[in-house]
This record gives sequence, structure tokens and C-alpha cells, in this order.
Amino acid sequence: MCAAYKNLSPAALKETYDVVKAHFDALKEKALKLNMARGKPAKAQLDMVSDILTVLSDPADCVVDGVDVRNYGELSGIMAAKRLFADILGCKPEECFIGGNASLTLMYDTISKAYTHGLLHSEKPWCKLDKVKFLCPAPGYDRHFKITESFGFELITVPMTPTGPDMDLVEALIKDPAVKGMWCVPKYSNPDGIIYSDETIHRIAAMKPAAPDFLLMWDNAYCVHEFEGEFVPFEDILTLCREAGNPDMVFEFASTSKITLPGAGVSVMAASVDNQAYMQKLISIQTISYDKVNALRHVLYLKDRAHTLELMKKHAAIMAPKFQCVLRWLDTEIAPLGIAEWQKPKGGYFVSVNTAHGLAKRTLALCKEAGVVMTGAGATFPYGIDPNDSNIRIAPSLPPVEELEQAMDVFCTCLKLAALEQLTA
Amino acid sequence: MCAAYKNLSPAALKETYDVVKAHFDALKEKALKLNMARGKPAKAQLDMVSDILTVLSDPADCVVDGVDVRNYGELSGIMAAKRLFADILGCKPEECFIGGNASLTLMYDTISKAYTHGLLHSEKPWCKLDKVKFLCPAPGYDRHFKITESFGFELITVPMTPTGPDMDLVEALIKDPAVKGMWCVPKYSNPDGIIYSDETIHRIAAMKPAAPDFLLMWDNAYCVHEFEGEFVPFEDILTLCREAGNPDMVFEFASTSKITLPGAGVSVMAASVDNQAYMQKLISIQTISYDKVNALRHVLYLKDRAHTLELMKKHAAIMAPKFQCVLRWLDTEIAPLGIAEWQKPKGGYFVSVNTAHGLAKRTLALCKEAGVVMTGAGATFPYGIDPNDSNIRIAPSLPPVEELEQAMDVFCTCLKLAALEQLTA
Repeated sequence: MCAAYKNLSPAALKETYDVVKAHFDALKEKALKLNMARGKPAKAQLDMVSDILTVLSDPADCVVDGVDVRNYGELSGIMAAKRLFADILGCKPEECFIGGNASLTLMYDTISKAYTHGLLHSEKPWCKLDKVKFLCPAPGYDRHFKITESFGFELITVPMTPTGPDMDLVEALIKDPAVKGMWCVPKYSNPDGIIYSDETIHRIAAMKPAAPDFLLMWDNAYCVHEFEGEFVPFEDILTLCREAGNPDMVFEFASTSKITLPGAGVSVMAASVDNQAYMQKLISIQTISYDKVNALRHVLYLKDRAHTLELMKKHAAIMAPKFQCVLRWLDTEIAPLGIAEWQKPKGGYFVSVNTAHGLAKRTLALCKEAGVVMTGAGATFPYGIDPNDSNIRIAPSLPPVEELEQAMDVFCTCLKLAALEQLTA
Repeated sequence: MCAAYKNLSPAALKETYDVVKAHFDALKEKALKLNMARGKPAKAQLDMVSDILTVLSDPADCVVDGVDVRNYGELSGIMAAKRLFADILGCKPEECFIGGNASLTLMYDTISKAYTHGLLHSEKPWCKLDKVKFLCPAPGYDRHFKITESFGFELITVPMTPTGPDMDLVEALIKDPAVKGMWCVPKYSNPDGIIYSDETIHRIAAMKPAAPDFLLMWDNAYCVHEFEGEFVPFEDILTLCREAGNPDMVFEFASTSKITLPGAGVSVMAASVDNQAYMQKLISIQTISYDKVNALRHVLYLKDRAHTLELMKKHAAIMAPKFQCVLRWLDTEIAPLGIAEWQKPKGGYFVSVNTAHGLAKRTLALCKEAGVVMTGAGATFPYGIDPNDSNIRIAPSLPPVEELEQAMDVFCTCLKLAALEQLTA
């Protein structure tokens, strides 16, 4: 099975098909139930951080900087949590708003408030505009695209390159004043695992959009999430935007969902002080504050960036063998066949496989038949439509390695089968 | 000082004024810094529930009903939390959506989604309508009014009576299809401390609004919050609305903010199963779930309604002396003078004082001068405008009784002074 499929004769293809089909049938017999659908941390990672459950046990510890975290108040969060996130992100504490357990909610609410009330430099709320367009580098994160789709925006696909979004195209598109913003995952992008190049990041920070209220949604979800090698530093996007004359263009988001507990972490929205003043006035109508007790748990548990990076090394020790497993299967089983390509990320939560056109849906349907659930085909594109039916997101974090071995056997078999079906049709 | 001011001669009024003014000046000398502005629980109440900080300490306890609360998932919350709130509210677990630490956020988001996407029976999102009107029984909760004001709705004041909102007026107003909803705090209403009568509640449930998507915002904030006497049972508003043919009209809200920790409680939104299906589809874009770890802490700590009511008795033991203090000062110092009236609530967090017209602002300005911060005058009315400049909300929960004695001395003195200024002007 080591020759590229395109070089095989029809007879050899048929023979290969029979072999792969027999293996597929055998795998189906096992009635597996495996899941590589979402970037969920594994139980071992959750158990590893168990001390956060009890780090705050004494009521006397609940008062910090004169604030009793148990009571109402402090809309933007406790200063100690702002200092922690500022240390991690490289911005200033006063540029941080501390949220609840989901940065997704902070992102949704930012877009929602742009829609209902407008942003700092908006002429009117976006719901009063005939048309709002949003740039979606793709493949990208399905939940991002869904937010902007949910508000009826027109999603414009921008191709991802190995250095980030195609900036020539972005710079052309933002000349349209109806283009109101862009989604970005700058480090270990979901799903490709790409780190935007310095040049890309500087070009983004220096954009001159026609829309005065252009909204750069900077989801730094994997800012400290290396699973291989040393921590890769990044520049502070707030500083870059400010220096480029765009101080209020960017909202940056991060969370501890994949540092401590996915269901009970703490999130942050970083933005210019002027943006904070504007947004917090709106947010003050929505809440009195997010959970400050849990924020304090995180401050006590994570301490600072250096200590957080030490914890991330422990996550890496659990994650790395899983990614190595995925990449080994792909390198061994798929690479020689010339039916797919992929990045080799060193951080984040995904491996993104681009198959020969027209194979993604069929591959995932076969996987499902054989008991392996994956992220739906097309999910990584706006409106869930992958024009080439090619991108597949593998999320190997949840299953133990033993299960992953089985799941990757299934995945590689199904990808081959889909390719052979196409070639022999 | 025991005769009603209106019966005093000009000379006696002047004499009384001098005495009161001298006392006011003496109080000012003390340079007090006291706060009766918001319904914040006292430190003693927070300390009382300290065990909730450590009730969930073993990672093995983090899996309930097959769900690992630490990880992503379970948008609507854990079943155990739904059972707890259903037990407290009298509705069904499947009618409950478990939120974060703020029912205010669930309320805001419900209104926001009506505005951006529309409700289950909306013809279009409310942002696409020329006019949205909302009924605001007043005096009421300033944060409710602010939400609807923030979205540009026209707020219509409905007078509160001792049995709840003036239902004759409500039934007339809802014939206007632009009237899209109403705020209600049915038990120990904020600020009057009124419990809506059975008749009022049944009339509300049986309303026939012209708007098909009329939104009854039922904030059951003080559902188990007696500070005097036994628990007062209440009917399940979801059942009443269903029986009256309005199954989807009501959204009920509650939280543990004043049961466990104000800054780190758990909230609930109860609504028909059809409403849940519709809303959860929208909420699924906004979050993966609220904090399930904290929800589980609450389940373990509060257990059920009966156990929660036992805890509320302990809160009552702390709260009752404070309300007795407020009412004693009012009864002794103000009642004989005929310059104000008030309810005598047995639960909730407020005492609502209605002064002779035109005294509220001046009274609170004088209080501020003497170092006592209170809820701003007018705050209990739509747009912050009390047409009679009469309603003052006293929030006695935060200060210890010793401080409260001082604060009430100040308050009564300032109210007298304001009245005497008016009468001698």
C-alpha cells in the first residue's frame, strides 16, 4: 500500500480497494465507540489540576485588595486576576475584563453588543445596517463562524496560508465599509495549528479598514498551549494596534478552559482602556460581576505566567503522545498515498487534514459507520460548507492513546476507502 | 416631636426645625461613612456558608449522572441542579436552564435575544420593530428597568398596589400589540416587599396580550427569602400560565446569590419545554455550558428545598434584627409625623418608604451630606424618574446593627429636615 494511488493501475486500485474494504469491515465488527470530535481535555488533565478545587478554602482568604470576592461588586473583576492575565497576554491589567467560564460568551456578547448598541466608534448599532460582512479565515473555528452567522452577517471566506490569513485579500476586502470585522486565532490556529507570522500580525495590526468600527476578534485561545518544545512568545496585539494607530480596533480573548478546567475556568477580554470604559458601561446592565470567587481560585492556583507555563508542560506531557500517535498514523498510512496533506502543529488542540477534493464528507460518514465520531465535514468553513469537501479536523485530546490508536486505524482506513471509491468509480 | 407636622403652627414648625437641624449638624460632625444603598448580604451571612467553598474537594465526586462537571458539555446544566431548582420553584427539572452566577445576566440575555433574534412566537426580532413597550410595575427594581431602557424600549409605569401591579391597568395596556412584556418580582417585591396576591398572580397568568410573543419576566429573586415567620409557599407560575393557555408566555428567574454567595452563586431560568428548546438553540451559540462545577457545589451544599429552607432560617436570624431596627426607627420617629408611609415586609431585602411628595431627593441629598449612602432617589422608577419624588429604598442588610442604628438616626433626621424645609419654605 505504499505507492501513490494516482500511480496505480485500475486493477491494482481494485485490489487495494478489496484489501482496505476488508479491513474496514473488520473494524466495523468491533462496534467501536470513539470520539475525536471536539477539543476536550482528557480526564488525566482534569485530575492533574484537582488542587484548584480546594485552593480557596478559608473565608479569610476571600478578601483581596480590599474586595470581598464573595459579595456583589467589581464589575470588571478583581485586580489580581487582571494582573495574572496581563502577565500571560503581555497587555496591561487595566486593559483586562475578567469574565466567567467561557471566553466564547465574551466573544458572543461583544458581537451582540455591536449588533444591539454599536461599538465605541460605530455610527449606529449594526442591527440598523442593511448589511454587515465579516471576514472568516478558513479553515477556522466553527463556533466563531456560527456567532457571526447567527446575527445574519455575510461571512466572507479568507483562505488560510501557512503564515496566517491571506493578507493581500484581507487588505483588499476591508476597503468595503460593510466589512465590519475579522476572526483570528493567532497562535496554533483552530484547526490548522498555524502560528501567524510576525509579518502577518503586523499587517493585521496596521490595517486601515473603511469601517470606523472594524472589530478584530483576536481569540488567543492557545496562547500558552504548546505540547511540543518550548513556549513560543508572542507580541501583545493591543500594543501593536495602538502603535499602528488602531488602539480601539482589537478585542483579545483568552481563558483557562484548557489550563485548569474546561467547565469551570475563567475568561478574559482585553481591549483598550477606552474600549473597556465603553463596553463596561454596557456590561454593567447585564451583570454585577462575573464569579470573583472562581477568579481568585485561579489567581491562587496559577500565580503568574511562569507558574502557568510550568503547568502547561504537564499538560504537554499528556497531550504530546496523542498528537504523535495521530501524526505517526498519518505519516505511515496516508503520506505515501498522495491523498491528503496536513500541518504538524506544536501546540493547540487539533490536526487539520486536507484530503484530495471531495473526500471529507465520505471519509467522515465511513468513520461514523465504524463507530468513530469526528467534527462534521465542512464545520471549519463559513456556513459549514467546505467548497472543496476536503478539510477534516482531528481532535485527539480526549481519548486515551490506546483508543486513539484504534480511532486512527479507523480514520486512515476510511480515508483510503473514500479515495479508492472515488478513483474506482 | 410627636404631633403630625401638618398640625403644627408656623412657630412650632420653626422651633422643631431648629431642633432637628441641630441634631443633623451634630450627626454631620461624626463624619460617618455608612451604606444602605444595595441589597448586599452581610459578611456574617457569607461566613455562615463557608462550607460551600470546600464541599466539592474530591475529583471522584465530579462525575454526576455520568457527566464530568469539570469538562465541556451539558449546555443546559447538570440534571441534579435542575432537580434542586425545580424543587425550590415547583416546576419540572426539564423546564430549568442552569446559568452562571447572575440571574441578571439570564434576564438580560433573554431580552437581548428577543431583540436580536426574536422569541419562540415572534414574527420578527424586536430590533426590527418600530416600537417596543414594556410594563414596569413601580416602584420596582432599577436593574430591571435599565435592561429594557438599554434596548430603547418605551417603559410604561404601572402603579404597585398592596396586592401587586394594578391589574386593571395591565389588562388594558396589553391590548396594545407594541406592549411586549412586563417585569414582575412576585414575592417580596423589590422594593416594597409585597407578595402578589393569589388573585393578581392568576390574573397575570391568564392575561391575553395582543402581542403573540408577550414576555412575562418573572423574577422570583426572593422565593425562599423570609426573614420573619414561616416560609410562605407560592404557586408555580409555569403551571399557572400553562393551565391558562399561555404556556410560553413566562420566563422565571431565580438564583442562590442571597442563599449562598452573591458573587459566586448559581442562577436558573425556568420556562416551558418549547421555550427551552428554542432558547437553548440560541444559547448554544453563546456558550458550551455555564460553570457546572459550581452548580455541583450548590447541589451538594443545598441538597433540596427543605434543606435550603433550613439555611434560610439562619440568614433570617441575621437579617431580622436589621429590619426590626429600620422599622422601629420609622415607627418611633417618623410615623407620628405624618410625613411618610411604608410597608412592613416579612422577607426580601428592602424597606420601601413613601414620603410626602417632593421629599425623596432632598432627604437623600441630606443623608449623603451626613455620610449615609442610599439608593438614589427615583431609582425605583422607569428612567430613574419618580413622578412624586417620594419613594426611598432602604437596604439594611449590609451594615451591622450598630451601624444601622446610626444610619437610621441619620435617615430619620434627614427626612424630618426635608419635610420641615418644605413646610417652612
